[in-house]
Amino acid sequence: MTRLTLALDVMGGDIGPRITIPASLLALEKNPRLSLLLFGDQQQISPLLKDCSKAVLDRVQIRHCTRVIDNHQGISYALRHSKGTSMRLALEAVKDGLAQGCVSAGNTGALMGLSKILLQPLKGIARPALVSMIPTMGKGKSVMLDLGANVECDAENLYQFAIMGSIFAEHRLNLVYPRIGLLNIGVEEIKGHQFIRDAANLLEKSTALNYIGFIEGDLLLNGKADVIVSDGFSGNIALKTLEGAAKNVLSLFNEQPKQHYLKPVFSWTVRHLFQRGYQRLKHINPDEYNGASLIGLNSVVVKSHGSANVNAFAQAIADAAFQARLQFPEKILAGLARY
Amino acid sequence: MTRLTLALDVMGGDIGPRITIPASLLALEKNPRLSLLLFGDQQQISPLLKDCSKAVLDRVQIRHCTRVIDNHQGISYALRHSKGTSMRLALEAVKDGLAQGCVSAGNTGALMGLSKILLQPLKGIARPALVSMIPTMGKGKSVMLDLGANVECDAENLYQFAIMGSIFAEHRLNLVYPRIGLLNIGVEEIKGHQFIRDAANLLEKSTALNYIGFIEGDLLLNGKADVIVSDGFSGNIALKTLEGAAKNVLSLFNEQPKQHYLKPVFSWTVRHLFQRGYQRLKHINPDEYNGASLIGLNSVVVKSHGSANVNAFAQAIADAAFQARLQFPEKILAGLARY
Repeated sequence: MTRLTLALDVMGGDIGPRITIPASLLALEKNPRLSLLLFGDQQQISPLLKDCSKAVLDRVQIRHCTRVIDNHQGISYALRHSKGTSMRLALEAVKDGLAQGCVSAGNTGALMGLSKILLQPLKGIARPALVSMIPTMGKGKSVMLDLGANVECDAENLYQFAIMGSIFAEHRLNLVYPRIGLLNIGVEEIKGHQFIRDAANLLEKSTALNYIGFIEGDLLLNGKADVIVSDGFSGNIALKTLEGAAKNVLSLFNEQPKQHYLKPVFSWTVRHLFQRGYQRLKHINPDEYNGASLIGLNSVVVKSHGSANVNAFAQAIADAAFQARLQFPEKILAGLARY
Repeated sequence: MTRLTLALDVMGGDIGPRITIPASLLALEKNPRLSLLLFGDQQQISPLLKDCSKAVLDRVQIRHCTRVIDNHQGISYALRHSKGTSMRLALEAVKDGLAQGCVSAGNTGALMGLSKILLQPLKGIARPALVSMIPTMGKGKSVMLDLGANVECDAENLYQFAIMGSIFAEHRLNLVYPRIGLLNIGVEEIKGHQFIRDAANLLEKSTALNYIGFIEGDLLLNGKADVIVSDGFSGNIALKTLEGAAKNVLSLFNEQPKQHYLKPVFSWTVRHLFQRGYQRLKHINPDEYNGASLIGLNSVVVKSHGSANVNAFAQAIADAAFQARLQFPEKILAGLARY
């Protein structure tokens, strides 16, 4: 296997280098064929690399820049003032062929906008989309898109999301003819926004796509569909609601008494009694699913949660490496020709 | 306290009388001042009342009808063909003053449409909304609306939902100056649909309302806002997603090994170790929160989940009785004058 280089915007996210640099080192340790270009403030980055082994350091290059796109900036303002920012420079490195993919935990709107301008949508794609995997209760995964890149959508956009999601699921989840569901507020054909019903009509006519109908929010975790398609607004609401519910419930079960003379007995009993439940609770931990991908672009771009911890950001880097190695953009382009 | 009569559409829901009748009897047993008018098929209802005590039977009247509004009917078709259906007759009983409120687990769109026609929105209310309580992790509750009555909304609708939700929270949750949040995909003012940002502007100008800003899906359970306002589509997606996540997680922990020689030890340990977690998990069980109310109408109308079990449907009846006794519609009308 050949070497792979990713460009990282290490200034993005709620915390910045103190998360993204340890995460980068973790990703490099786990993947010896990976190299990283770190775009950000050298003064903040360098001290975080000082305990690092030479084998890892050899695969890191810092590209110093001090400008950062703020999370609170509107998209158009952010784009106009993006020159020299860590996010833009990272994307430009991909554009210039210096890296095969980009990871950022920064402003989603700006990342989307800049990616579209610098890396361009794939031929035939009107709107790239934000896609991620969500866990299912049966230990499987589903693919869900759009998760917030496109607030306003029409039926044609949803139809393209379904195509891209289907191809993504084929390769990411190793599925044949993935089942596609449209997120809606009922399963009857009269339910929901007109553009969703129109998208359903388009999908029903396609024999190449395995469209199975509407899916409601309460069945998102149940693996009823391999690909869940929605507009970016509803998709984002649903995903964040899922994440919040999962994190809250997991937190309840982390509230074990810290000191208790029966703790060893407790731990043993709980492990045995609830092993299955626990494994599956762990399986729905949002940290395991960090990294939404912008698909429909000519290169791999992965957006990490702004609040990602070290493991979660490392997961996003690993995901970008996986997609770049498998040449996902080329796979989607080839798939588009089939539909 | 005076007696109270509710009109029940006992044919609605996925299962019909086999759920709604036992639930009615449960509600009557728990509330000795409650009487019920049961609208539905006498042949299906009567056998389910045969083991019932006289004290309860005295407070039940069956109003025989055989026509039912189907869950899969479009709203306009359902309304045109609603004459003589259990849902319509129950609402007519409220209109005619024979009952002080109505409960149905039937077609939400039809219930909304018929309620608007027969019971009329309160003076000044453009769109009644579907409101429900959701649990918070701190053992509290929040109020959320609209949950699906209005798929398309504008800023003015959201503003009115905020007013109604605030009054509802004051009386239902005993709160002073409830905090109001708008459901959105980010907390920055540039996020989301234009109509949501316009609603935020309206709410910010109002000093009578305690508007605190946008709230994202991941914080719905965290009690950041007492009233969560959204359009009906997003609200329905978010609520169902929450319910699905909660039910799925609860199901994991009901999968205890049925036979195990250490079961007594397990049970004791788990009770002690996770008592707090369990109590709070139970607190987020969706069955405890069945019954969304249509507010903004001249009378109390409660919509139960179609999939409600006996306890959940009984909960919806109890909720309608509570609102009717406290004269919620009059309270909302009085509150509207304040804003």
